[in-house]
Amino acid sequence: MWDSTRDLFRGVLSHDRVSLSRAITLIESSRDDHREQASLLLDALLHARAKRAHAAARQLPSLRIGFAGPPGAGKSSLIEAIGLQYLSAGARVAVLAIDPSSTRSGGSILGDKTRMPRLSADSRAYVRPSPTRGALGGVARSTNEVILLAEGGGYDVVLVESVGVGQSETLIDEAVDCVVLVVSPAGGDELQGVKRGIVEVADIIVVNKADGDLLPSARHAAAEYRRATQLMRAKHAGVGVNPATGEPAWSTHVMTASALKGSNIADVVSALHAYRTAMERCGALAARREAQASTWMWDAFQDSLVRWARSDAGVIETAARLRPQLVNGFVTPRAAAQQLFATISSTARSRSTHA
Amino acid sequence: MWDSTRDLFRGVLSHDRVSLSRAITLIESSRDDHREQASLLLDALLHARAKRAHAAARQLPSLRIGFAGPPGAGKSSLIEAIGLQYLSAGARVAVLAIDPSSTRSGGSILGDKTRMPRLSADSRAYVRPSPTRGALGGVARSTNEVILLAEGGGYDVVLVESVGVGQSETLIDEAVDCVVLVVSPAGGDELQGVKRGIVEVADIIVVNKADGDLLPSARHAAAEYRRATQLMRAKHAGVGVNPATGEPAWSTHVMTASALKGSNIADVVSALHAYRTAMERCGALAARREAQASTWMWDAFQDSLVRWARSDAGVIETAARLRPQLVNGFVTPRAAAQQLFATISSTARSRSTHA
Repeated sequence: MWDSTRDLFRGVLSHDRVSLSRAITLIESSRDDHREQASLLLDALLHARAKRAHAAARQLPSLRIGFAGPPGAGKSSLIEAIGLQYLSAGARVAVLAIDPSSTRSGGSILGDKTRMPRLSADSRAYVRPSPTRGALGGVARSTNEVILLAEGGGYDVVLVESVGVGQSETLIDEAVDCVVLVVSPAGGDELQGVKRGIVEVADIIVVNKADGDLLPSARHAAAEYRRATQLMRAKHAGVGVNPATGEPAWSTHVMTASALKGSNIADVVSALHAYRTAMERCGALAARREAQASTWMWDAFQDSLVRWARSDAGVIETAARLRPQLVNGFVTPRAAAQQLFATISSTARSRSTHA
Repeated sequence: MWDSTRDLFRGVLSHDRVSLSRAITLIESSRDDHREQASLLLDALLHARAKRAHAAARQLPSLRIGFAGPPGAGKSSLIEAIGLQYLSAGARVAVLAIDPSSTRSGGSILGDKTRMPRLSADSRAYVRPSPTRGALGGVARSTNEVILLAEGGGYDVVLVESVGVGQSETLIDEAVDCVVLVVSPAGGDELQGVKRGIVEVADIIVVNKADGDLLPSARHAAAEYRRATQLMRAKHAGVGVNPATGEPAWSTHVMTASALKGSNIADVVSALHAYRTAMERCGALAARREAQASTWMWDAFQDSLVRWARSDAGVIETAARLRPQLVNGFVTPRAAAQQLFATISSTARSRSTHA
């Protein structure tokens, strides 16, 4: 391990927030040497944690909670309120962000770097100052590693905020134990502006801003969401089944809260606790992490594979030869792809037929 | 070519709508033999078209227009109105749909099979009755082939409707020549509910329902969009530059229309014509199709590659061996992926080092 990696390793382990930030930057870097260094660091942290876990009781080392919802629903305020609640219960809290941003502009929607001031001020909390960026798949994958890093740094509760408007909402489901959908008490069609996919993956729906004049419409919205979720099939059917009863271990909870007034925040945390207990008891939480790790692995494998294949001399040559035919519409993209594939797989196939 | 494929080929070429529907179903099928048959059919159609194109003047054989926008903006009605306009100008019109639907439920949002009744009733039009479904990447790719099929069947104007709520809106940009964003004159924050990404890829924005009481707010919304698009950088910068002036060949047009009353529909068609002319003149349209075909090719290549690699005996064995370590958190998904990759690429690497 390089000296600087060893320093970072010690820093992250000793809850040094600057070290954690530097480590996260390494993981999100597009430079190969940075990512190699980050890999070494992560492996060392996982090893250290595995040793500790082996010594201690067999339990899930952390809780990963994702927050999704339309802009303006007050996700950040709710996350801060929930984070403070966890802090006061003795946990260490990290707040991360998934932000695939706009693919074209590459710009981040969230320019504010001093978000969640009360949480940031507490030394037991870590709030990632700026959200991750880059290509979608890459961000999602690095989010998973950033979570592992934060856990390696001893944060028991990892809150992941989906700050992008698009696909981050459904991607978050692949990175966390529990998805909280945060919505505001909209007038009229309550489900408007909320993506269908995200309602389906939500474990808990919080109608935020349930205070003052908005209280009645918040309750009305909650009732709407309750009806909507009852129409959907149970999310964890198949995975999260209580073996004793055969019933789903969890059905989507819908609740109102006000991050501004601090009302019902404890109830949301209780619901999170109930979710964790229910999902842990039937093994669904472990199964979920297993499935996620497997997804990350195959995704990363696919990335390496594609990078390798696209830099193959034979493939490059075939692509150049096919280009005029493709451009003139004499060959379909799929037929062209088949020729590229024949080029790359010829070695492997000749081996298997002669074996 | 199989007999049934030959029949389909003849049917599609002779503008038989039933044949076209059957061919599209083949392309969207998940069965390998269906897709093989569809491939043969497409190749034959492309060949036939290439011959015709060679005989005729060198021009783009069709115009592909994509329609995106939030549900309730009146996309279908606008498409029908525009389609009828093209019919009366002597074109043949096909209406297709991209609908990635919900990944979880697999259900289609659009159950209505008799949409666009006036357009459907005209024998020179083809309206695909039900939208495509399936895995996201697959749908997008088959959309491209469905477009090629429709063009093979002699439809000069292909209107592609994005009916899904999620990613179809940005995917449509990869399948068409021109993206029309359809919005309704919303009260309050006009940009609410419209995804940022889609505004950035829109070539023309139509504020629909600009009639009666909604006329003032439609005009107001159009002004809002105009301001918003002026803040964004020109979409086709780099590709769509007028070589004479160095200026972008096209800047996003914002206009109001009413599909219901039929007002300003001719203006929208004029704008589409102006777009085509501007983009064709500077070579940007051809460049765009070239880039799209290349994207489709590499995507399909990647699919084949991944399918092949994941069925490799060595990879399967390594994955099984890594599983307990991955599940227990002793190895990161990325490190596991590197081991999988080492397995699959060993043959190729041994070849290149011994060469």
